[in-house]
Amino acid sequence: MTGMLAALGAMPHSATAQTVTLRPARPQRKVLLLGAGISSLMAAFELEQAGYVCEILEASHRAGGRCMTLRSGDIVDEIGNRQVCRFDDDPTLYFNAGPSRIPHEHATVLGYCQRLGVPLETSVNLNPAAWLQFDAFNGGQRMRQKQYIADARGFMAELTQKGLDDAWLDAELGESDRDLLRQFLRSYGDLGAGDRYRGSTRSGYSSGGLVAPGVLRDTTALKDLLKADFWRMGMHFAESSLQSAVLQPVGGMDRIVSAVTARLRSKPRLHSVVVGIDVQPDGVEVQYRERGELRRTRADYCLSAIPAQLLLGVDNNFSADYRRLLAGRPRGKLSRLGLQMRERFWEAEGIYGGISWTGQDITQIMYPSGGFGGRKGVLVGAYILSGEINDRWVNLTSDERIERALQQGEKLHPGYRSYFESGVSVAWHRMNHMLGCTATGSDPGTAAALRAPFGRHYLIGDQVANYGGWLEASVLSALAALQDLDAKEVEAA
Amino acid sequence: MTGMLAALGAMPHSATAQTVTLRPARPQRKVLLLGAGISSLMAAFELEQAGYVCEILEASHRAGGRCMTLRSGDIVDEIGNRQVCRFDDDPTLYFNAGPSRIPHEHATVLGYCQRLGVPLETSVNLNPAAWLQFDAFNGGQRMRQKQYIADARGFMAELTQKGLDDAWLDAELGESDRDLLRQFLRSYGDLGAGDRYRGSTRSGYSSGGLVAPGVLRDTTALKDLLKADFWRMGMHFAESSLQSAVLQPVGGMDRIVSAVTARLRSKPRLHSVVVGIDVQPDGVEVQYRERGELRRTRADYCLSAIPAQLLLGVDNNFSADYRRLLAGRPRGKLSRLGLQMRERFWEAEGIYGGISWTGQDITQIMYPSGGFGGRKGVLVGAYILSGEINDRWVNLTSDERIERALQQGEKLHPGYRSYFESGVSVAWHRMNHMLGCTATGSDPGTAAALRAPFGRHYLIGDQVANYGGWLEASVLSALAALQDLDAKEVEAA
Repeated sequence: MTGMLAALGAMPHSATAQTVTLRPARPQRKVLLLGAGISSLMAAFELEQAGYVCEILEASHRAGGRCMTLRSGDIVDEIGNRQVCRFDDDPTLYFNAGPSRIPHEHATVLGYCQRLGVPLETSVNLNPAAWLQFDAFNGGQRMRQKQYIADARGFMAELTQKGLDDAWLDAELGESDRDLLRQFLRSYGDLGAGDRYRGSTRSGYSSGGLVAPGVLRDTTALKDLLKADFWRMGMHFAESSLQSAVLQPVGGMDRIVSAVTARLRSKPRLHSVVVGIDVQPDGVEVQYRERGELRRTRADYCLSAIPAQLLLGVDNNFSADYRRLLAGRPRGKLSRLGLQMRERFWEAEGIYGGISWTGQDITQIMYPSGGFGGRKGVLVGAYILSGEINDRWVNLTSDERIERALQQGEKLHPGYRSYFESGVSVAWHRMNHMLGCTATGSDPGTAAALRAPFGRHYLIGDQVANYGGWLEASVLSALAALQDLDAKEVEAA
Repeated sequence: MTGMLAALGAMPHSATAQTVTLRPARPQRKVLLLGAGISSLMAAFELEQAGYVCEILEASHRAGGRCMTLRSGDIVDEIGNRQVCRFDDDPTLYFNAGPSRIPHEHATVLGYCQRLGVPLETSVNLNPAAWLQFDAFNGGQRMRQKQYIADARGFMAELTQKGLDDAWLDAELGESDRDLLRQFLRSYGDLGAGDRYRGSTRSGYSSGGLVAPGVLRDTTALKDLLKADFWRMGMHFAESSLQSAVLQPVGGMDRIVSAVTARLRSKPRLHSVVVGIDVQPDGVEVQYRERGELRRTRADYCLSAIPAQLLLGVDNNFSADYRRLLAGRPRGKLSRLGLQMRERFWEAEGIYGGISWTGQDITQIMYPSGGFGGRKGVLVGAYILSGEINDRWVNLTSDERIERALQQGEKLHPGYRSYFESGVSVAWHRMNHMLGCTATGSDPGTAAALRAPFGRHYLIGDQVANYGGWLEASVLSALAALQDLDAKEVEAA
C-alpha cells in the first residue's frame, strides 16, 4: 500500500490523465459500490471493463451525488425543505447545484470526458467586467472589477516605486537591472509621468476609446480600495486552482453522470439505504433497505462513497481505529441557489459569464458561460462558502432564500427582481443522505490514513483527498482504490 | 457635423449597442459603397432597411475585407505569394487571418451578431496555463505563465512591504489602514511568514495538490524574471481592451460577413476595382473595372472603405486638404499564420485556448477556444505585431514562413513539427487591394477630420477611428456616416 500512496503523493497537479489498468477479473468476482457519486460510477466503469460484476447501491432517488444539475421537474431532497425545480422545460436552462467547473489541471476527469464523449466548453471564471459590491466601499455602489483591480495595481506599483531605495537596489540587482525593475513596475501598474498612477485604460474608459479618443475613469484611492473585502477573496480566487482555462460540460455537469451511467451494465439501485456493513476476511456483506424492505448482498470487495460521518451510523464491524479516522472527517457547509431570469439582462451590461462578488450573504452571482445572446438564462444567485452565513442560510425555507437573494441581488443589478421567474436552492448540509458538502478536517494525516482500506472495504470519494470538493479528487480516490484492489487480487490468485 | 462628432466622442467605451435610425428613403435614392468590408456591409444593411438602393463594389474575389476566415480551398491573394488553403474540408478547421476576437465592450458588433443570428462563444484570451519562452530567460526553456506571474506578484509585494515606511503610512492612512494595507499586500502576493514570498499555489504544484498535499514549485528570483520580455507585453495585454470576457462567432469571424450578406438585396459586386471618383454637388460618380472592363456608376452618396493610401491613387476631384488628410493615414503591418495540426497536443499539456508568448519572430501561438477534446486543430502559429519583424516576414514565401514557424514553435512545444499537416499565412501589408492593416498615424486630429465627409463622399472603416483594428470601430464609423447622410437628406427634402 505504501508504494501506491507514495505514487499518489508524487502525482503532479498538472498532469496527463491518470489511468488504471486492471488485470482481467477472475470469473464472478464481484464489487459492491455504496453511493452512486462520481467516484463510485467511475470505479464501476473501470471494473466492468475488466470483467468484474458490480452492484451499486444509492440511498437517494438519483445517481450523481453532489454532481447534480437541476432542470425542469427535478426534485431537491433537502430535509424538511423538499423542492421541485420549476424552470422552463428547456435544456439550456439548468443549474449546477454542486460542482460547475473543471480546472484545466484536472486531466483525469477531462480524460474521462473525452473517453465518454462529453462535449466541453469554456467556463468563464474570471470576468473583470463583472461587479463588486461591498457596503463599506464606494458608498455601497457597485463597481466593475477591472476598475478596482487596475487602481489597486497602479497605486501598489506607485507605492513600490516610492519605497525603492536605489542603494539597496544597486546592491541587490545592479544598475541595469534596477532600471529594468523600474520599467517593470511602470508596466505592471500602468504608471504615468513621475511614476505616478493617474488611471489606466485597463479600467475601461468613461467615454470614447474607439472612434474618438478615450477619457480615463476617475481613480479610487488605495485607502478606499482597502475598504472593499474584495481583495480578501474575489480579487485573487481565480488565480489559484480556478485559473483559466476552466471547462464545463455543455448542458450541465451531470452530463458526465449520464454518460458514464449509460455505459454501465449494472445501473445504480436507487432508494437503497445501507444499514449494515460486515467486513469479512474474503469479502464484505452489506445490509440495506430498498424502499423499506430489508435486503442483503455480498461481494469480494466493497468501495464506499458514503460520507464518513454517515458511515459511522451504519452497523459495522470496523476497528476502533478506523472508526476514529471516520469521525475525523466531518463535512463542510455550502449553499447554492439558482434563479431563472426572463431576460439575460447582464449581457446588456457587458457581462458574459464570470462572477460578481458582494459582501452580502449571497457572496457571489455567477453568470452563464454559454447561450450568449439568447432570451432567458439561469443565474447562480447565491454561492455561499462561509460557515457562519451557511448556519443562517440553512434554516431558511427555499422561498425565504429566494427572497433574500432577490433583495441582495438588487444592489448589483438594479431591477433584478423584475426579471425573476423561478428559483431553487440547495444547502448541502441539509440534503438527505448527505448532510454536508466537502469533507473538512484537521490534519492531512487523517485523509491519508483513510485511503488505506479496512480489509476489503475501501473508503472513496473526495473525503479521502487532501483537497476535496473536486470531481478530480473523487475520481483519483477511486483509481487509487482500484489499483490496490488489483494488487490484492494478484496476491489472492 | 460638429454635433454628431461630439456625440461620437461622448460614446462610452462600455456601452449598450449603438444603433442608427434612418428616416425612410425617398424613392430611388441610391448609395454606392466602395469596398465590401464590415463597415460597408453593415451600412448597406441599414440603408436597405430604410429603403435605399445600394451598390457595393469590391476589388477582390471575396467580401469581408480583413474579416477573413480561411478554410479548405480558400485563396489568399497576397501579391506574388498567392496561396490556397489546404486544410481538411471540415468546418471546425478554420483560421481567422484578421480579427478573431470581440471584446465584451464592443456592444454594437455584439448587438448585430444577436440581430443577425450569429452564435457566439467565449474566446479564451488570457490563459495563465499557456507558456512563455524567451531566450534570455530560464535558459531559454518555456515556463507556464502562471508560475511567472505568481512569482512576479509575490516578489513585488514583498518588495513593497520592505519599502513601506510606517511613519509615512500612519500619516497617509492611519494605523488601522496601515495594517489593512499590509494584509492586502500579503493577499496580493500570497506572502508567507515575515512577509516573505516563498512560492504560491497560484503557480500550480510541482507534485500533489489534490489527493496528497501539494508541493510548491521553486520560485524564480525577480532579477531573473526581469530577463523575460514577457512583462513588456504578454503579461499585461489581456488587461486592456482584451479583458475577459472576450467573444467569437462559432465557426469563424466571417460568420458575421455571411450573415449580413445573406440579408442584403444588393450583393457585393466582386473583381470590381474603382479607378475614378468624381464628387458632384448632388451625388458621386464612380468609374471601375470589372474583370478588366471599364464601367461607370452613379449614386446620391458614396461611402468609401477603400484604404486611404489606395484611394489617393484613384482619379479623383478631392480637395487638396482632403488629399492631405488621406495621406496622413498610412496603414500598419501585421502578419498571421495558421497551422493545421493532426492532433490537439496542447490539450494534453493542459492548454485549452489562450496564447503562448515568445521572444522569437512568431511572437504568439494562439490555441483554439472551442472543439475541446477533438482530434485535429488549427493553431495561430504566428501573430506578429512588431513593424521590424513584419518587414522581414513579409518578404518570405509562404513555405519559408511555415518553416520558421515550425522551427520556432519547437521551443514552446517539443515535437511541434511532427504534428504539422498544412499551413497558410497572411501578411496584410502585402495583400492585394489592401497593402496594409490597421491605419496608423500621427495625431487623432487626422482621423477626426476624416470623419467629416468631402461633399457626398464619406470615408468609413476603422481608418477614421482613433483606435483602429476592431470591427466595432468599423461599424461605428459606418453608423456615424449614416447619421450624417440622414441629416443631409432632411436638408435636401
